[in-house]
Amino acid sequence: MAKKQKTAISPTRAEDYPEWYQQVVRSAELAETSAVRGCMVIRPWGYAIWENIRDALDRKFKATGHVNAYFPLFIPLSFLEKEAEHVEGFAKECAVVTHHRLEAGPDGGLVPAGELEEPLVVRPTSETIIGATYAKWVQSYRDLPILINQWANVVRWEMRTRLFLRTTEFLWQEGHTAHETRDEAWEETLTILEVYKRFAEEYMAVPVLTGEKTAGERFPGASNTFCIEAMMQDCKALQAGTSHFLGQNFAKASGIQFQSRDGEVEHAWTTSWGVSTRLIGGLIMVHADDNGMVIPPRLAPSHVAILPIFRSDEERDAVLPYCEALAAQLREVSYRGRPLGVELDTRDMNAGEKGWSWVKKGIPVTVEVGPRDMAEGTVYVGRRDVERNERYGQPRDLFVAGVPELLEEIQAALFDRAKAFMDEHTRAIDEWEAFVAFFTPENEEKPESHGGFALSHWCESEACEKRINDDLKVTIRCIPGDRGADGTGMCVACGKPSPGRVVFAKSY
Amino acid sequence: MAKKQKTAISPTRAEDYPEWYQQVVRSAELAETSAVRGCMVIRPWGYAIWENIRDALDRKFKATGHVNAYFPLFIPLSFLEKEAEHVEGFAKECAVVTHHRLEAGPDGGLVPAGELEEPLVVRPTSETIIGATYAKWVQSYRDLPILINQWANVVRWEMRTRLFLRTTEFLWQEGHTAHETRDEAWEETLTILEVYKRFAEEYMAVPVLTGEKTAGERFPGASNTFCIEAMMQDCKALQAGTSHFLGQNFAKASGIQFQSRDGEVEHAWTTSWGVSTRLIGGLIMVHADDNGMVIPPRLAPSHVAILPIFRSDEERDAVLPYCEALAAQLREVSYRGRPLGVELDTRDMNAGEKGWSWVKKGIPVTVEVGPRDMAEGTVYVGRRDVERNERYGQPRDLFVAGVPELLEEIQAALFDRAKAFMDEHTRAIDEWEAFVAFFTPENEEKPESHGGFALSHWCESEACEKRINDDLKVTIRCIPGDRGADGTGMCVACGKPSPGRVVFAKSY
Repeated sequence: MAKKQKTAISPTRAEDYPEWYQQVVRSAELAETSAVRGCMVIRPWGYAIWENIRDALDRKFKATGHVNAYFPLFIPLSFLEKEAEHVEGFAKECAVVTHHRLEAGPDGGLVPAGELEEPLVVRPTSETIIGATYAKWVQSYRDLPILINQWANVVRWEMRTRLFLRTTEFLWQEGHTAHETRDEAWEETLTILEVYKRFAEEYMAVPVLTGEKTAGERFPGASNTFCIEAMMQDCKALQAGTSHFLGQNFAKASGIQFQSRDGEVEHAWTTSWGVSTRLIGGLIMVHADDNGMVIPPRLAPSHVAILPIFRSDEERDAVLPYCEALAAQLREVSYRGRPLGVELDTRDMNAGEKGWSWVKKGIPVTVEVGPRDMAEGTVYVGRRDVERNERYGQPRDLFVAGVPELLEEIQAALFDRAKAFMDEHTRAIDEWEAFVAFFTPENEEKPESHGGFALSHWCESEACEKRINDDLKVTIRCIPGDRGADGTGMCVACGKPSPGRVVFAKSY
Repeated sequence: MAKKQKTAISPTRAEDYPEWYQQVVRSAELAETSAVRGCMVIRPWGYAIWENIRDALDRKFKATGHVNAYFPLFIPLSFLEKEAEHVEGFAKECAVVTHHRLEAGPDGGLVPAGELEEPLVVRPTSETIIGATYAKWVQSYRDLPILINQWANVVRWEMRTRLFLRTTEFLWQEGHTAHETRDEAWEETLTILEVYKRFAEEYMAVPVLTGEKTAGERFPGASNTFCIEAMMQDCKALQAGTSHFLGQNFAKASGIQFQSRDGEVEHAWTTSWGVSTRLIGGLIMVHADDNGMVIPPRLAPSHVAILPIFRSDEERDAVLPYCEALAAQLREVSYRGRPLGVELDTRDMNAGEKGWSWVKKGIPVTVEVGPRDMAEGTVYVGRRDVERNERYGQPRDLFVAGVPELLEEIQAALFDRAKAFMDEHTRAIDEWEAFVAFFTPENEEKPESHGGFALSHWCESEACEKRINDDLKVTIRCIPGDRGADGTGMCVACGKPSPGRVVFAKSY
């Protein structure tokens, strides 16, 4: 038996993928569970990734004409009830505020008091509360469109939670727009889908498929739901963002009406769309490896960790000032319009351990500097996207000048690797047996044990969709916009005619 | 009787200050009430001010070594109970979550179901939930200090609310730090107080007094509370930010313990500090006038509104492209490291009305451009800090090049005006009769009808503090850090010895 390579994360992906995920999150100090069931603490390193996601997306939203605003955390129960499918979709996961103070109870402890006349739901999403405000704002077609986004926390009570991927409270953005015409709202829905796709690919270095959800997978109350879907390293899909065309459903529920150009009173057409801290879960599951987190440079909280190497106080006194000067020099370098993020790690610990701690955190670049490097004017560079033993020495000034290019090279390499992985595990499958085999792992130990994306024909029946889900835990992730471009065929489950292939996968 | 000058806001400050405030908020489209009792909708123009406040403060926090993180929205009731004074202070204003789903009730509507074993309080502030996490993180003195800030929403149930100033839900930042020594925590508390003061003065153009709160006005559970206090145009004080030295109170309640350098197990020393969307209320009450909002340029969502003037389609076709070119030219200009914010208002409405709409929104600069301006290569400039009839013509290129300087001039003028107002209404008062007279308006109609800041001696007794509050609704806003520098004296209320003057005022 070959000697097993030592990894910084244990278990490895191959050994136990779900546990590997938890250990990556833990050892990178991204997040942790809290004393409140299902609610997580997002630690500074994880939150800084979220800030970068927020800022990058926010720029894209603003560039497409949107502005931010803020609406109440609480939704009166009666508002939620206005749209029947909507409330049905969320009723089972609502945190409900019923009282507005605490007072001493019979046994001395505090108990809820001041019962509310109408319970308030902590927003699971804000269509209904925002709709009530838009109804006040909109009188005439001149008041449209409204193009607003909100950065907020939302709560959906979850019984089984997993850090970032599924938590009771999570952070997200939710866009809510109202339009004069169906076409304009439809175009908005697809514009945002494209924003999400470009963000995922350009910033997260995560290739995604886009398409429409089937009726059964739609957002509760939406006419159409579009999504971006990414492939994780276990070959499961992650729905990474959704953009909903709401038709006039919510406008009717909330009374968003306006006088049209023709003088008629009409209901507005609305959209909503969101991505959440779940994206960080996606980043981890796409890029992290058996040595821990790997953060695409464009979203990294910091870019370069400088690791001073010394074996004595004397060496320390020489190396530290040299490293401080290097840090200052690096901070003068601009990467994508902002100063490089630089960490100078002066902690008093073993050099190897120190280096691995940054590997586990996923910082894109490490530079070790010891007395010999100082003497030679070099640094010893480690790229997070390749093995640790591929570190290389480089003249200091050459390194400093080249960091922005190096980071962009890493960014591209991560995307290319993820794209190759997705392509490798995406297959057109026409036969039921092959379809079953694709989703039935031969070797549970392989990290890529869940098949991947099957591009297969579907007859459009709920029965086949359900059968596939019941038998294989496989769902239709999306119906591509160009479905059928490669021809019609026969449903992989029942053999009846299909207008084109859709994307099947197991999913988170 | 002199003809009353027409104002864009009615009533004026002199006529009805509280109603004037509401009308400024409404006509600037900063915020509005929602269907949820006490919760506001922060509209895009108001939210953009908050984003600028957030970004500027965030830079200052990061420059002083802090990082951001995110902690749960919910606090288990038992956590809140751990610190006796703390829970007593907040018990009356807690929104309480008691159920985690909705189900059909007896009469068909939905009712709360899935009762929680332990009720959850929607955070009114996060000392206890964050403390529980710090207790896990801190083992040794090497784990200290922890310097974390959180941007979040909080809920304090209020019976009487006013937009921005007092709302049930508000947005804020809350810093929570833990330290090895008392001195270090004390220094942190004062460092942040200084950050707040500088932010208020440099960005908000609001002069503030700093000092310590009396025991009765302390944050529930704190050992010492420090604050910044600003004077509004009605001469009342607004507490605009607080920084709390928590001693070891919360560390003991939450079990934040560490092994010291001497090998002893000790409790950490903690601080907490926050400012909220209340600051926007302060901005309005310090700078806005009878024509509406006035936003200091450094916090303005946008800086220049271009108002094309035309009387025919022909003129329109000539003026609009010219204005678009001007907008593009202005957007190339950098103001404090970022591109100028420029609005090109092409709405089809009366030019005067259009101009006033921007005055009411408080944009720092307007530029009108009509056919004659075009022909002459000039623009017609309006500064928000002076009267509308003081607009002036200026060559276009001269204007464009001078905008950053103009904005800084407006910023400085706003601060100087507010400072002069505060100084004018701050008085050393030694006699009880004069003290009473100061806080008893002769003329209720004057905007400055609540006296101002009285610098008076106080014997340190709660009895005198209470008497002054009961008789005059006047409180001790703060005890200056240099109290007594101008000598000791006799308490303005009882005549007993006083170690120095403190600041008295009516307040929001």
